[in-house]
Amino acid sequence: MTDLTLMKTLHIPAKTKIVQLVMDGVGGAPRALDGKTELEAARTPNLDALAAHSQLGLAVPVRPGITPGSGPAHLALFGYDPLTYVIGRGVLEALGIGFELQPQDVAARGNFCTVDEQGRITDRRAGRIATEVNQKLVALLRDIKLPGIQTFVETVKDYRLVLVLRPTAGQTLHANILDTDPQQLGVPPLPARAQDEASEATAAVVNQWIAAAREILKGHPPANSLNLRGLARDPGLPKFSEVYGLKAAAIATYPMYRGVARLVGMDVLTVAGEEIEDEVETLRAQWEAYDYFFFHVKKTDSAGEDGNFEGKSKVIEHVDRAVIPAILALNPDVFIVTGDHSTPSALKSHSWHPVPTLFWSKYCLPDGVGEYGERACARGSLGVFPATDEMPLAMGHSLRLSKYGA
Amino acid sequence: MTDLTLMKTLHIPAKTKIVQLVMDGVGGAPRALDGKTELEAARTPNLDALAAHSQLGLAVPVRPGITPGSGPAHLALFGYDPLTYVIGRGVLEALGIGFELQPQDVAARGNFCTVDEQGRITDRRAGRIATEVNQKLVALLRDIKLPGIQTFVETVKDYRLVLVLRPTAGQTLHANILDTDPQQLGVPPLPARAQDEASEATAAVVNQWIAAAREILKGHPPANSLNLRGLARDPGLPKFSEVYGLKAAAIATYPMYRGVARLVGMDVLTVAGEEIEDEVETLRAQWEAYDYFFFHVKKTDSAGEDGNFEGKSKVIEHVDRAVIPAILALNPDVFIVTGDHSTPSALKSHSWHPVPTLFWSKYCLPDGVGEYGERACARGSLGVFPATDEMPLAMGHSLRLSKYGA
Repeated sequence: MTDLTLMKTLHIPAKTKIVQLVMDGVGGAPRALDGKTELEAARTPNLDALAAHSQLGLAVPVRPGITPGSGPAHLALFGYDPLTYVIGRGVLEALGIGFELQPQDVAARGNFCTVDEQGRITDRRAGRIATEVNQKLVALLRDIKLPGIQTFVETVKDYRLVLVLRPTAGQTLHANILDTDPQQLGVPPLPARAQDEASEATAAVVNQWIAAAREILKGHPPANSLNLRGLARDPGLPKFSEVYGLKAAAIATYPMYRGVARLVGMDVLTVAGEEIEDEVETLRAQWEAYDYFFFHVKKTDSAGEDGNFEGKSKVIEHVDRAVIPAILALNPDVFIVTGDHSTPSALKSHSWHPVPTLFWSKYCLPDGVGEYGERACARGSLGVFPATDEMPLAMGHSLRLSKYGA
Repeated sequence: MTDLTLMKTLHIPAKTKIVQLVMDGVGGAPRALDGKTELEAARTPNLDALAAHSQLGLAVPVRPGITPGSGPAHLALFGYDPLTYVIGRGVLEALGIGFELQPQDVAARGNFCTVDEQGRITDRRAGRIATEVNQKLVALLRDIKLPGIQTFVETVKDYRLVLVLRPTAGQTLHANILDTDPQQLGVPPLPARAQDEASEATAAVVNQWIAAAREILKGHPPANSLNLRGLARDPGLPKFSEVYGLKAAAIATYPMYRGVARLVGMDVLTVAGEEIEDEVETLRAQWEAYDYFFFHVKKTDSAGEDGNFEGKSKVIEHVDRAVIPAILALNPDVFIVTGDHSTPSALKSHSWHPVPTLFWSKYCLPDGVGEYGERACARGSLGVFPATDEMPLAMGHSLRLSKYGA
């Protein structure tokens, strides 16, 4: 697999520019009507024309057969083997809302939930309460004090929050602790259970905070309880500048993806709105300032998760129209169109299917397959390849690597 | 990657013969005219006919995106992962001129260079002095004596030489020492700096030799100084006889490739001249004496490095005419046509592009693609595969491996 050491050793300066366009969950599955996937059914004249001058392939985010979460899937696209580099969900959430996480912090994702009088969970998302309600509850939770530990409670959106514990008295916190969310209804939350001896003291502190929080929330149905998930510390990933020598920028509107990008050292750019056109505007405005752009489109995945085949095709058509010509007009040296994973609307969830990927550069040898789609990519010269290869290939094709050995 | 242990454990005797024809830098990039590469543009009726009965694929010498030097690229073809097995440049150069390197020796590549009155480098190659001038200067340098160390100074060609230090008094030399060539003009050479404590004594000896050499060269412009690069010891690679049980021969005219072949235990055969026809003659003459032949063609790479698209195509056509029918007439059991890396004339240098590879054996399942070229190979059943797989495949197809497990 990809060796980051090789990248660290060989990268050289260049003036070339790389764009990695990630349509979240772009890969799909065939519908009964005509056996086409969402991507194959979409009308994408710009992507098809670009495909004719590109190499195609199917990217495997983690390993064959494995369905990745968003964190691992993006790490792979960035060249970090997700089995080697592991990020806890709590850390992703904290970074995603722009929280300045410190190396000693322990972060957890929190979900407000509804419990009945016996303390059994009746709604794991507390009826998806409005973000404004969340903010009011979070303000109350900030009053909870723990001895020797600073706590931060932050609203994410809807029913989701982040809890960060920061040691103040020289102590060390450990985060090998199980989720309290039992992932089912009709049972009470679980205690925060340490998975190793080092984490036991921290688990005790976490349980203390949870007890205080539930006491406060009792009077505020439907959000009359909460769960913590993905307790974790900053994994201290190597940074893009160090690994690739790239000045890297992330253009993404959804907190999670902004978070992963920050973790690998990208500048996370301000996007004026939530629309794809706003992201394109940011790309244009910042084009001269960076070597590499991670450009993330969320709505392909959302439509897939909703089981909306037509909707997903429409998002892809929107990207084809609004993003592809705009990026080509900027004249990048390497342009990759890919996804972090597949999200077939037939499954309404992420899946293990390898991800249709288009790789264009001035120095690529085009396959001559004039279509961007799952089956078209299966005929491409990149073959079925680890997603972690995308960045090393981009580095080669952008003339940013020196020769290995004499 | 390939596990040499597996080969060592499983190889069995057989009477079959393997030929690995390496057209150095054979892979290319498309020209504007018609989008064809050097190989695709070449008229190669014999290779195309052979391709129709072969399996095709694209070999990755080191890792995707990585441009290999000749040493690592050839190690990969021989089945040795070049990230695991590393050879210093000095060793390659010494072996390439037929120097009988001993395990305790330290070898360095030397370049004569020109310095100004302040000792700053004005030409890193001393105006590419003639080999005859090099030989006269080397004769002078042989007078330098070091206490307790035997020194060998040898001409390579043009401005290049080899220095070998051999301990005589039971001491041990170490070679973790940086190059003295600063790789730029207008600055003085660097001292030979040890990178670990064990190498400090050797670095001192090297600096002593360099000082004496520069004193001698002072009066001989343009070669009035020199630099040493790639200080190294024989890495003690496992040998072909031991790994594969093959009696292996190398047919190559250029020192570097003869050197790598010797390092893995091949017999390096005498070739009567510099021409491809001379190499074919050697193959014919030695056919009965060996199990495996590494047949190296240098001029594909040279033309690529010169940016000579037409010239590179012509070398390939020459091979098609003069080598392919001759090898087939000898009736090999496995015949591989490949390259060590790509050298697109558009780049005038080695590149990261995977290498078009043709694999023929009596037992292969032909792809039915009647062309040997980059895009034809991209459609082949070998897919994009590590170059280190070529030898294990050759071993299998030549019935030289026993079953793994019961």
